[in-house]
Amino acid sequence: MTRRGRFISLEGGEGVGKSTQVHALAAALRERGLKVVTTREPGGSEGGEAIRSLLLQGEQDRWGSRAEALLFAAARADHVDKLILPAMEAGRWVLSDRFVDSSLAYQGGAGGLGIAQVRGINAFGIEDVFPDRTLVLLHPTGAARALARDDGSSDRIGGRPAEYHRSVEEAFRTIAEQEPDRVRLTDASGTEEQVTERLLRAIEDLL
Amino acid sequence: MTRRGRFISLEGGEGVGKSTQVHALAAALRERGLKVVTTREPGGSEGGEAIRSLLLQGEQDRWGSRAEALLFAAARADHVDKLILPAMEAGRWVLSDRFVDSSLAYQGGAGGLGIAQVRGINAFGIEDVFPDRTLVLLHPTGAARALARDDGSSDRIGGRPAEYHRSVEEAFRTIAEQEPDRVRLTDASGTEEQVTERLLRAIEDLL
Repeated sequence: MTRRGRFISLEGGEGVGKSTQVHALAAALRERGLKVVTTREPGGSEGGEAIRSLLLQGEQDRWGSRAEALLFAAARADHVDKLILPAMEAGRWVLSDRFVDSSLAYQGGAGGLGIAQVRGINAFGIEDVFPDRTLVLLHPTGAARALARDDGSSDRIGGRPAEYHRSVEEAFRTIAEQEPDRVRLTDASGTEEQVTERLLRAIEDLL
Repeated sequence: MTRRGRFISLEGGEGVGKSTQVHALAAALRERGLKVVTTREPGGSEGGEAIRSLLLQGEQDRWGSRAEALLFAAARADHVDKLILPAMEAGRWVLSDRFVDSSLAYQGGAGGLGIAQVRGINAFGIEDVFPDRTLVLLHPTGAARALARDDGSSDRIGGRPAEYHRSVEEAFRTIAEQEPDRVRLTDASGTEEQVTERLLRAIEDLL
């Protein structure tokens, strides 16, 4: 029987380098002989992508905060069902650029819906498929960098004010305190290679 | 200050005549001088309709049961936010062809996710906006008629087997036992006028 793969999520505010590190970490794990699948949220599966396009397009107030949180939870349930769980069961490691903790931090913490309430609707959707480890990248100037970015990549969420981004980071710190085994804060400053090394050390016990 | 309007939902399995009765009941209430808005689920608001099209199109197994339940809950949150609550606050009565109890009966009961669990994600979405009265139409041959119908209107849900439709009806009976003040079972046999009379009697105390 194939040994089930591990599931790792990378989290953090805008501009901390999550996408870059997902790919760098995947490369490092592949060098160790592991089969690795990278994915992202929202999206990551056909149904998830369809929901992603509903979420990221349109006016800032297109969705109320509760509808938005339920849409993220629905996309995540599909993502687990169609991609994450099948890959793990086939022995692959799954690295996801954002997962459930983005909803807890953005909608639950910064958005004011409550971390526990948002965890409830998400736990319904994903059943027990929480990541084996969640790495939260923290960069002292992360939020400021995201706001200064002028590459046309800003969307409904990236375009919110600095105070909102600070609340998101605060919520990630709260979640890490609540679930210290699963959720680890990682310093995202320094070179890309330095950050990747720190992430590898934070999952060493799972290898 | 405008007196807040009432919110009534009509529920029941396929083919019991809900759509007909929503319009007949609206006409009867308008004759009494009330301002009435009719709506339906899934859909009923711009965002809700966008989610409806995701839900009703595609293959039978496009969505897992948990993603489906979360999408219905998201559409419903939008429906309340954008249409139902604003109409009630403007003094209008709202009559909806299906609402939260369809999710409790279809996904929670017949679909096996659990009535309480599906109630939980929906209560998150709609906050306290449960209907003032929910009228469940029961017709002895309702499910059989839906299955025999050959008018091209069958969709992913209408096309399911007879046993499923019987479980849905059983779930509606369970919900009515759990919430007897809000949820009333109504005999849907006889003429359209007879059924409308029964529905009017079941909301007489709210008039």
